[in-house]
Amino acid sequence: MENKLNCYKQMVERALDALPMTGAPDMLKEAMRYSLLSGGKRLRGCLVLAACEMAGGDLQSALPFACAVEMIHAYSLIHDDLPAMDNDCLRRGKPTNHIVYGEGMAILAGDGLLTHAFEVMAASDHPHAFRALREMAAAAGVRGMLSGQTLDVTLEGTSPDRETVHHIHEGKTAALLTAPVTAGLILAGAEENLIQAGREYGYHLGIAFQIVDDLLDLEGDPALMGKTLGKDQAEGKITWPACVGMDQARKDAEMHIRLAADALDPFGKEAEFLRALAFSTLHRVQ
Amino acid sequence: MENKLNCYKQMVERALDALPMTGAPDMLKEAMRYSLLSGGKRLRGCLVLAACEMAGGDLQSALPFACAVEMIHAYSLIHDDLPAMDNDCLRRGKPTNHIVYGEGMAILAGDGLLTHAFEVMAASDHPHAFRALREMAAAAGVRGMLSGQTLDVTLEGTSPDRETVHHIHEGKTAALLTAPVTAGLILAGAEENLIQAGREYGYHLGIAFQIVDDLLDLEGDPALMGKTLGKDQAEGKITWPACVGMDQARKDAEMHIRLAADALDPFGKEAEFLRALAFSTLHRVQ
Repeated sequence: MENKLNCYKQMVERALDALPMTGAPDMLKEAMRYSLLSGGKRLRGCLVLAACEMAGGDLQSALPFACAVEMIHAYSLIHDDLPAMDNDCLRRGKPTNHIVYGEGMAILAGDGLLTHAFEVMAASDHPHAFRALREMAAAAGVRGMLSGQTLDVTLEGTSPDRETVHHIHEGKTAALLTAPVTAGLILAGAEENLIQAGREYGYHLGIAFQIVDDLLDLEGDPALMGKTLGKDQAEGKITWPACVGMDQARKDAEMHIRLAADALDPFGKEAEFLRALAFSTLHRVQ
Repeated sequence: MENKLNCYKQMVERALDALPMTGAPDMLKEAMRYSLLSGGKRLRGCLVLAACEMAGGDLQSALPFACAVEMIHAYSLIHDDLPAMDNDCLRRGKPTNHIVYGEGMAILAGDGLLTHAFEVMAASDHPHAFRALREMAAAAGVRGMLSGQTLDVTLEGTSPDRETVHHIHEGKTAALLTAPVTAGLILAGAEENLIQAGREYGYHLGIAFQIVDDLLDLEGDPALMGKTLGKDQAEGKITWPACVGMDQARKDAEMHIRLAADALDPFGKEAEFLRALAFSTLHRVQ
């Protein structure tokens, strides 16, 4: 699995680096590229490619969508890190965008990445491009990622019930892990029942991923994570372990990973990679 | 002309007010609606409808695009007004978004409006929806509006040459007045030469519009404008009058309006409304 993941990752990395952004002012382009090309697992971009390949689609024509979801993810991190939001100075071991370029430029760089994601998708002549873009827009939108982020910000410091915490994680994390899977399947021309199976996979993977992330913040290795740990807890962040305890959180992550893997049954052997990818998420906290 | 403009404006206003934003957290929805429904001329939305009707298209199916361009415009104003950008407290006579909802929520409200614009366009089943969305994305993007805004911010306080100022206004203003015209024509199924004519119209209208706006900041009536005047000059903002003088600026606005009107020749009598709309822009400073 690792080989294939690295291969997808390299494809995404190269495509991101090669985005022309023609006509963008140098400073804007630099600030956008600073965050876009600062590493990361490229999980969302890889999911587009893996889902597309699983359903027999063409990887090259799916690449703009892999880039788009990474741009949407990068924009959300830049705006999240701003002083008016999480006020983070460090991301993946590097100073955050506003520390390097100033707040005004960081806001514009985020806006630029979000808009460019849509521009890149809209430039595609793939016959299913429009529907794939629709999935991305909904996932990034006010009932998707932005819903989760808003609740995360407005409820910080409170102790919301499990249902609310779950709802936040659906928006904040699961939406932008689901859309790349469904978009990849749509681009491959997969049938509706398979797209639906992919949606379930992405959803459970996303919830598990957020729980694991919360667990890592509590017990991970700071050197490996490239950020300050224990910060969530110190700042009264809403996390699943804070809500149900560490042991239950670990069990819940396992359950969601099993559900994610099971959802892939309709794909049979072709789903081997995405199944293994789901289980590898758990190994980060085992 | 006024009657027709009011009719378009009311259609846009009602459609914006009726946007469901289902699933958005109440606070996010409220902050988005606060800026989106705070008045304004709805010029961009009206341009979509007028261009669509001029080419014989269906107004109802163009409405989502009229809403989208108004959402993109509203997002750009919210982010522009932030302390890290223009630091404005007043917009159309009302406190700006971050004054009411705080900086974090204002950033999210802007992000929400931008993303929702794409979500609304992507939900359209109009056969030319994808191409119309493509026009909007490019206009809002890093070689369109965001290019102008970046240069505006980074060059503030300097005295750039005419070419640079013109380039800033192309991005900052003309791009988002051109896209609604071309999108409206695309949705009406207009032929390529007519779309190109509309592009020229929108471009010159946009440049003239920005010059008139700069002139109004210098000599307009504060009560009518709903904002502090003379602010551009005091803050070293880059304006066309500051670059070429008031008299030349007035002449240039007139020239661009004439070019805009001339560009509509291929539409014959059907262009009466958009021609009159262009000339009415000038009357604001005469």
